[in-house]
Amino acid sequence: MTTPAAGRLVALEGVDGCGKSTQAARLAQVLGAVLTHEPGATGLGRALRALLLDPSATSAPGPRTEALLMAADRAQHVDEVVRPALDAGRWVVTDRYSGSTLAYQGWGRRLPVAALREVVGFASGGVEADLSVLVDVPPEVARRRLAGARPDRLESLDPGFHRRVRDGYLELARGEPHRWVVVDGAGSVDDVATAVESAVRERLGAT
Amino acid sequence: MTTPAAGRLVALEGVDGCGKSTQAARLAQVLGAVLTHEPGATGLGRALRALLLDPSATSAPGPRTEALLMAADRAQHVDEVVRPALDAGRWVVTDRYSGSTLAYQGWGRRLPVAALREVVGFASGGVEADLSVLVDVPPEVARRRLAGARPDRLESLDPGFHRRVRDGYLELARGEPHRWVVVDGAGSVDDVATAVESAVRERLGAT
Repeated sequence: MTTPAAGRLVALEGVDGCGKSTQAARLAQVLGAVLTHEPGATGLGRALRALLLDPSATSAPGPRTEALLMAADRAQHVDEVVRPALDAGRWVVTDRYSGSTLAYQGWGRRLPVAALREVVGFASGGVEADLSVLVDVPPEVARRRLAGARPDRLESLDPGFHRRVRDGYLELARGEPHRWVVVDGAGSVDDVATAVESAVRERLGAT
Repeated sequence: MTTPAAGRLVALEGVDGCGKSTQAARLAQVLGAVLTHEPGATGLGRALRALLLDPSATSAPGPRTEALLMAADRAQHVDEVVRPALDAGRWVVTDRYSGSTLAYQGWGRRLPVAALREVVGFASGGVEADLSVLVDVPPEVARRRLAGARPDRLESLDPGFHRRVRDGYLELARGEPHRWVVVDGAGSVDDVATAVESAVRERLGAT
């Protein structure tokens, strides 16, 4: 018996409307990887997501509560989906991961980023993304793409929030250049997909 | 106008069946304090509690998930109930607080206590209990008191778990003697109530 090669974890990150969900699906297909997402990839996560995104919630979660629920969703996602796939030698592509909590709750909601990193580290249980791909678009492009879709609670936030989230992502990428790559998401789906695939193959090698 | 005196936060802690809920109610009454509890004191918290304690859950929360959901419940509890009451100058008595997460998830579930302390600190948003009262009983006494009650998911755990939780509480109390007091919970309800009240008045002064 041979031990299977350890899998790799690639996270697609970016603001709502940047196109990362489409890109995550494309990337998983070309890599033959497990495709997953946050929040809501597990049964428990779906229940949490419903709580978080309900615009009519009578008891709206505060910023720290929101961050901790996102972290709880991640802990369950790691245990049920991500770690088992990696342990089996599979590659995993996830639509959002730890970077989302730092960008949205840290920069977006202005929670202290250092404390949030501790929470995020606890939630992931040591399973870090080998590469986070930021699909970067100006907030105006993202908003135009989202127009027409019914805004949920997070997406209906003000433009200042979205600008802070994008700035947060760019700062995260600058701070850990060996773990992040920034791809221009303003082009066509095919162009962006080519750029994402090239970046992943260059950084992590062929599968 | 005078600024109201800041309120104080007293947490009643201990294993299931130790009698702390009864004691919390008695203490709140003699102090004229706001009585509250964890988990489930807010609308969102009740939804989380239902998720956590459902013995038939198809997607049972893992240990880190459970800890983060307890922390999320606390963050919301602090924002909606505890901090507003303290800011208004009220005393608050809570049936469980940060000590529960450390004892149950740290010692009970064997999660790393140092990392858990970071999560707990983030959740409380700086609102620490001025005094935590451990109502201490041997696990056998607690189990006898619980007998007959329908065990929920946490309570149906093995005796080793309950012993570890009790040991964790005792270690927490030894580690922070200025923030904890241990009361023998094996006596009558009246005797324990007298001991709890004396301890609180001695440590925090009269209200």
